[in-house]
Amino acid sequence: MIKIGIVGATGYTGSELVRLLYNHPEAEIRIITSESRKGEYFSDVHPHFQGLADIELQPAFKILEEELDVVFLALPHGVSMEYVEKYGGAGFRMIDLSGDFRLSGPDVYTSWYSKKHSYPQGFKKAVYGLPELHREAIRRSRLVANPGCYPTSAILGLAPLVKANVIIPGQVVIDSKSGVTGAGVKAKPTTHYSNVSDNFKAYGLKRHRHTVEIEEQISGLSAEGPMQVQFTPHLLPVDRGILSTIYTQPRERMTENQLRSIYAEFYDGHPFVRLRKEPPALKDVRGSNFCDLFVTYDERTNRIITLSVIDNLVKGAAGQAMQNMNLMFGLEETTGFMAVPLNP
Amino acid sequence: MIKIGIVGATGYTGSELVRLLYNHPEAEIRIITSESRKGEYFSDVHPHFQGLADIELQPAFKILEEELDVVFLALPHGVSMEYVEKYGGAGFRMIDLSGDFRLSGPDVYTSWYSKKHSYPQGFKKAVYGLPELHREAIRRSRLVANPGCYPTSAILGLAPLVKANVIIPGQVVIDSKSGVTGAGVKAKPTTHYSNVSDNFKAYGLKRHRHTVEIEEQISGLSAEGPMQVQFTPHLLPVDRGILSTIYTQPRERMTENQLRSIYAEFYDGHPFVRLRKEPPALKDVRGSNFCDLFVTYDERTNRIITLSVIDNLVKGAAGQAMQNMNLMFGLEETTGFMAVPLNP
Amino acid sequence: MIKIGIVGATGYTGSELVRLLYNHPEAEIRIITSESRKGEYFSDVHPHFQGLADIELQPAFKILEEELDVVFLALPHGVSMEYVEKYGGAGFRMIDLSGDFRLSGPDVYTSWYSKKHSYPQGFKKAVYGLPELHREAIRRSRLVANPGCYPTSAILGLAPLVKANVIIPGQVVIDSKSGVTGAGVKAKPTTHYSNVSDNFKAYGLKRHRHTVEIEEQISGLSAEGPMQVQFTPHLLPVDRGILSTIYTQPRERMTENQLRSIYAEFYDGHPFVRLRKEPPALKDVRGSNFCDLFVTYDERTNRIITLSVIDNLVKGAAGQAMQNMNLMFGLEETTGFMAVPLNP
Amino acid sequence: MIKIGIVGATGYTGSELVRLLYNHPEAEIRIITSESRKGEYFSDVHPHFQGLADIELQPAFKILEEELDVVFLALPHGVSMEYVEKYGGAGFRMIDLSGDFRLSGPDVYTSWYSKKHSYPQGFKKAVYGLPELHREAIRRSRLVANPGCYPTSAILGLAPLVKANVIIPGQVVIDSKSGVTGAGVKAKPTTHYSNVSDNFKAYGLKRHRHTVEIEEQISGLSAEGPMQVQFTPHLLPVDRGILSTIYTQPRERMTENQLRSIYAEFYDGHPFVRLRKEPPALKDVRGSNFCDLFVTYDERTNRIITLSVIDNLVKGAAGQAMQNMNLMFGLEETTGFMAVPLNP
Repeated sequence: MIKIGIVGATGYTGSELVRLLYNHPEAEIRIITSESRKGEYFSDVHPHFQGLADIELQPAFKILEEELDVVFLALPHGVSMEYVEKYGGAGFRMIDLSGDFRLSGPDVYTSWYSKKHSYPQGFKKAVYGLPELHREAIRRSRLVANPGCYPTSAILGLAPLVKANVIIPGQVVIDSKSGVTGAGVKAKPTTHYSNVSDNFKAYGLKRHRHTVEIEEQISGLSAEGPMQVQFTPHLLPVDRGILSTIYTQPRERMTENQLRSIYAEFYDGHPFVRLRKEPPALKDVRGSNFCDLFVTYDERTNRIITLSVIDNLVKGAAGQAMQNMNLMFGLEETTGFMAVPLNP
Repeated sequence: MIKIGIVGATGYTGSELVRLLYNHPEAEIRIITSESRKGEYFSDVHPHFQGLADIELQPAFKILEEELDVVFLALPHGVSMEYVEKYGGAGFRMIDLSGDFRLSGPDVYTSWYSKKHSYPQGFKKAVYGLPELHREAIRRSRLVANPGCYPTSAILGLAPLVKANVIIPGQVVIDSKSGVTGAGVKAKPTTHYSNVSDNFKAYGLKRHRHTVEIEEQISGLSAEGPMQVQFTPHLLPVDRGILSTIYTQPRERMTENQLRSIYAEFYDGHPFVRLRKEPPALKDVRGSNFCDLFVTYDERTNRIITLSVIDNLVKGAAGQAMQNMNLMFGLEETTGFMAVPLNP
Repeated sequence: MIKIGIVGATGYTGSELVRLLYNHPEAEIRIITSESRKGEYFSDVHPHFQGLADIELQPAFKILEEELDVVFLALPHGVSMEYVEKYGGAGFRMIDLSGDFRLSGPDVYTSWYSKKHSYPQGFKKAVYGLPELHREAIRRSRLVANPGCYPTSAILGLAPLVKANVIIPGQVVIDSKSGVTGAGVKAKPTTHYSNVSDNFKAYGLKRHRHTVEIEEQISGLSAEGPMQVQFTPHLLPVDRGILSTIYTQPRERMTENQLRSIYAEFYDGHPFVRLRKEPPALKDVRGSNFCDLFVTYDERTNRIITLSVIDNLVKGAAGQAMQNMNLMFGLEETTGFMAVPLNP
Repeated sequence: MIKIGIVGATGYTGSELVRLLYNHPEAEIRIITSESRKGEYFSDVHPHFQGLADIELQPAFKILEEELDVVFLALPHGVSMEYVEKYGGAGFRMIDLSGDFRLSGPDVYTSWYSKKHSYPQGFKKAVYGLPELHREAIRRSRLVANPGCYPTSAILGLAPLVKANVIIPGQVVIDSKSGVTGAGVKAKPTTHYSNVSDNFKAYGLKRHRHTVEIEEQISGLSAEGPMQVQFTPHLLPVDRGILSTIYTQPRERMTENQLRSIYAEFYDGHPFVRLRKEPPALKDVRGSNFCDLFVTYDERTNRIITLSVIDNLVKGAAGQAMQNMNLMFGLEETTGFMAVPLNP
């Protein structure tokens, strides 16, 4: 059994981790921590866990008193780095679900997150936890930087095209639409029911932090060096799910079949990516770790359109973290992922 | 392994059965049938099953060619009775998810369903499949009439009070609110998005078929003989879930503690009923087989209010059917029910 | 032209007042105040008013510098009473949209609002602003206490039955379901999108403040003296609208026709109450000042069911306030109410 | 008074026309027709109009028996053309809300609508009813082809840039998201509540009919001749509203201020286009005839992003039709448009 600690219990990623690990046959949650709710039960904070996870919440430092194999950090951006620094020397591996170690280094971090990084040494140790790109490195890693939700959907949609070197680097538009849980559990005007329901809007134009995360990862696959993307997030009146509509231009005219082969080859052996024959909908993956992809070629305009759909809390956060854990501990990547998507 | 056939694949109950049975360690789905979509794959009809249940749909008569232990009938009301009659002599047990055998006999059926029953003999064989009331009979049954969704929520909320004989029989008001999936998968004006979204209404006042189903079951628990209830269903702009607000009057003044003891005692040993300290919400049980109950006493008015919450597709349909299957085959009632409620 | 001041601009009632008054041919908004956003424009706070109401927000004391006929107080409970006391001697009339002067006196206020009232003298001056009950008194009033949203729906549903003295006083159950805007504009966990969307729950059982407001008003119509009601509010995943399902018991058996006559007679000459032939839905009144009623008699159980639907921000708040203003200034009750309900 | 006939009463555009015209001081609806519901009342079909529009529905041919100034055709695509042909010689003007006469001629129609046009002569008479582009021609027209909803949002977002000749013609991506009412009132799987709610998907990739409508209109503004666009529609879980996110590339580097000037100049004197300082949301225009635009320049990528928001039933259909009517009859463009957007 893998002995597990979860630091940060009150948010959606923490709660989702417990939901997924609860069904994992090799996982044993030994401790869940929360500074703000310590002493209460996990099922007080998340009442739907009553009878399933009536676990008392501990202060974070208690993770040192348990014998743990891996610790998931489900903490806000900027807070995680302190924990990585502090507990880096402890015996357990760490999977960090924040954005603190996803980028290539402290300078690019500062430039996009507008603050100094308190633990720049961490970047060298961290592996970007997207198994479809870095499976081997994740297996050996002791610190995984779990990808952002938007980047997961965008990178998985773009990677085959970039790797196959068939698209023009400067012509990449990623129009993404996300459910509200991506904005966190905290009540704020942007997540107030009547501001979201029956509504829709774009936000974070031009300078969203996930832009650079996408660019760094796909640039790493590119034969042509650094790639820029135009990324625009939108807020959907749904709980879960991201759909990215990705527009690219091929260097030369292509066929639909060529495109499908490129995707099929790239994702051969990757159990969580499903290539779809029809445009996928958010609910097709809800609650599951799937990334559903659809690609098509517009002959009229000579443009490629890729649709990429994930559940932002699963493949975009907690599920991917558990997938990474499976790799780190030599398990089948799919172990414990029994859930059929909940639709409707 | 329990060898399973599912008759009726295109609706929500059929799809939900496959979702739940997919994770059941002792279940093996041998055949899924559909007259309207035979020859297609189950995952063509329900694309979120791609890669999970790419099973070719068969015509119904093929269930006789398989060696089956149990057949689930996920068919419309009025259609199921033909199958029960036709296949009653085959070697398998049957769990019927329609309303065809839930009532006590053909006369009451005709009176509330406004049509003649084509297989009146079936009523005697059928056991009403609410495990919290009829566990032993279900274990021995070869034909289970799986309860309606509203009745499940209402009966589980009322049963302890009726059994304890503490309420006045004529004063029972059940105000129920259901998600849209209860109305089925078929597109019709009542389920058209813009008629439901941001909207709410009552329907089926006074003569809803579930009224008599509730009355018959609680009357069976009553020391006072037949009980009438006032039942009003409403349509919520949500996919899944029923919340019933149940108003009753105690014969004598009571305390909150007395009430809670009555419920705790009644549900002792019933793993899917959770007694809650706070009013439960639909999402607390979404995707799971739980029925969450909350009961309180209003001293000012001398009235009891019970809140009962289920997922109509799980505890109100497919989950309860699987729970019944577990009982019929000598398994733990909870076998295969691994899902933590999906919230949010 | 009626010269108008609005105190409190940031909430939904303030914004809704401006929306409605904008189309009123005899209304002229002279000042809108906000302590927290003064100096900003009304259309900065509510961007959908850009180009329509680009009015600079003033501090509240400025209402004394304008020549005003009427001031609407769109303030939180407990704050309004200070303004009523402070500005009671000014030349304008006041319509208070808070709960501060809706009850009969300071004692009952303290008992249900759990705090002392700072201006008990105000109760004697205030008229309860439900035109269908108190039209003449409203016409003469200088201080109108605009009714609560739930009470408006409940009282309008019950009043004809109570006035006609046909129901048993102790057997009144009001099961109400409200949209989220009733909880205000402020972000809090209860109005967080993912806590509301695809969800449903009861709250405020037994002790909701609107209970006493309903009881006092219908008791005033009763030949039998004080009446108690069982009132339970629920939170719907919709923006606007309240549907109350009201269960009562007639003293003697009745007919559907008798019931309809009672309602038709009571609401004769009241332009905003529509008696419906079918159960009304929330969207049938959205954005409008209508209260749609449906009444039916269950012969089987000898019970009356009344359905009452309003838009909580219009007939339940700002619209009713404007209706009261029309009465106070000798206008037709319907002046300025041009909006057809927005459906869908 | 303008004497009005409305042909087609059961759909959303018909109902929305009545809602808007109801408040128009110069409009008098003389007849509403419906073949499928003739003899019933308009308020039977749309119950929220009870007491407001209790008008008996007539068969269509009756429009010849009324003395009418203008007839609105609220009919399905392919049906409208018959009426235009049949009634073209009658004394009234026509505003056709279908797609039958929006394109430049029968060949392009056949190519995108995949069927022959039965009245090709109509194209020469028809004026494309987008007042911000064709105000003068609309004034003189006897047949207005009211624009599609997506094209309205897209063209109004693109027109200033094309007219100013600052963007590269081949690099236009329009990613549009629409509410469900755009798909019509008829129940079908794509508009089934549980297929839409908490869900999101793209559809009609590459070959949506609105693509060519957009291309023809902006090509008409272009100094460079024909322009192609990449247009992708998506289905939002909302009732009303379209948001188009439009990506273009300037020929040379620009400033934000230059962009804003281009838009401000283009829309000077156009009362329904609002230039916004922040990204607009759907609810900012709900129920109103506004088109809210936001434009920004990404220096990093040298790309322009324009956001365009409308209510698809108002500015995208019935509202624009009424705006066209105002122009055709010499009224102020804004006559009768009193509604403040309904938000929330």
